[in-house]
Amino acid sequence: MNLILLSPEDLENGRLARVRDPRRLAHLRDVHRARAGDTLTLGVENGLLGRGTLLEYHNDEALFDISGLEEAPPPALPVHLVLALPRPRMLARSLEHATALGVKSLTLLNTRRVEKSYWQSPELDAEKIRHHLVLGLEQARDTQMPEVTLAKGFRPFVEDRLPELLASRRGLVAHPGMPAACPRGVNEPTLLVVGPEGGFIPWEVDKLLEAGCQGVHLGPRILRVETAVTALLSRLA
Amino acid sequence: MNLILLSPEDLENGRLARVRDPRRLAHLRDVHRARAGDTLTLGVENGLLGRGTLLEYHNDEALFDISGLEEAPPPALPVHLVLALPRPRMLARSLEHATALGVKSLTLLNTRRVEKSYWQSPELDAEKIRHHLVLGLEQARDTQMPEVTLAKGFRPFVEDRLPELLASRRGLVAHPGMPAACPRGVNEPTLLVVGPEGGFIPWEVDKLLEAGCQGVHLGPRILRVETAVTALLSRLA
Repeated sequence: MNLILLSPEDLENGRLARVRDPRRLAHLRDVHRARAGDTLTLGVENGLLGRGTLLEYHNDEALFDISGLEEAPPPALPVHLVLALPRPRMLARSLEHATALGVKSLTLLNTRRVEKSYWQSPELDAEKIRHHLVLGLEQARDTQMPEVTLAKGFRPFVEDRLPELLASRRGLVAHPGMPAACPRGVNEPTLLVVGPEGGFIPWEVDKLLEAGCQGVHLGPRILRVETAVTALLSRLA
Repeated sequence: MNLILLSPEDLENGRLARVRDPRRLAHLRDVHRARAGDTLTLGVENGLLGRGTLLEYHNDEALFDISGLEEAPPPALPVHLVLALPRPRMLARSLEHATALGVKSLTLLNTRRVEKSYWQSPELDAEKIRHHLVLGLEQARDTQMPEVTLAKGFRPFVEDRLPELLASRRGLVAHPGMPAACPRGVNEPTLLVVGPEGGFIPWEVDKLLEAGCQGVHLGPRILRVETAVTALLSRLA
């Protein structure tokens, strides 16, 4: 945690924030060994960040002066990530990696090789997803909360939703064996589609290409989803 | 497992290989539902890969015909990774990521902010390390086993070992706040030094720069070690 992220409910007014949840309190106690008067790096969700003073620290509450937060969060990565829903533990890590790397829009997509049971995982609860996004933001010292949407049907997503997304973005589908290498350092808005373990089926690749995505690869090596997500985003950054 | 990696002990002669360990046998049974006559992707450690035929499959043994393996492994990434020893679980994943991305030499380094206890972890046993390297190779369909060395003293490594490594490699130390962005797509032999959670101390950065490394950064975001390793290697690839 390189920043203590304050949610809207923590804010008392523009000058004070009160932290009450056990996770952040434990972090303040165990990692920062926090005491009243300490200054710490704080950020307001979807707002500014900077150094703030811990005014009071009790077992069940920490009160911060946040009037000194003046720094903008780091620039977002202009990549909308469309990720075939990974198995739960890999989903958790992929959300953290993508958020830490600056992704602000993320769609979890159903594809043929996504196991049906993954859609029943408690990791898809809004609170669980939010938890991993918060961890990613805290890691990267960012405050801008990503938006995560679920697309439980491949065809409706590709036929109805994708065209409008691609109206203002370059689309890339990462798949082994595609003709072009993944581009480097794109500054324009980009939509990146990453398949499941085992890959897209050929029909899915065709549909994504037909919709206007360009097929790209990362070389001959087959990577785990979480490695591929980080490797692709880093290459695009 | 996108390839079944055969170790030297598995080889009967140039034409046959016998797999006896429970992990690979379980994978053959549960994932491949393997039966005699099936062809599977096989690779010989530090050798060729390709399709091989399963001649016999029993509960305690699988016998393969490997006479048809003719493919070279994918090109190595010409990066020697020097990684401050991470905590055990992150070490495991970092070894797998780096191996899957094609790293062939890896040094685990002590630095001030590496917790002493990490050097006592069973994850550092040669067999455990090898296990994670094998997983990375199997994932990436590679056969060339990386070499991992331990450098338990920072100063001896930097003063005695690093100069000879840098005689034939460009050295990069990844550290937040360094003046240059990490280069993209290097084809020349490179040594990449990545610090621990919490970073190098300034004296360590100075020593690495004095030894001839160039300081590079990945932008304003602070990444977890495993995310940073993948992001840096992908950018260099």
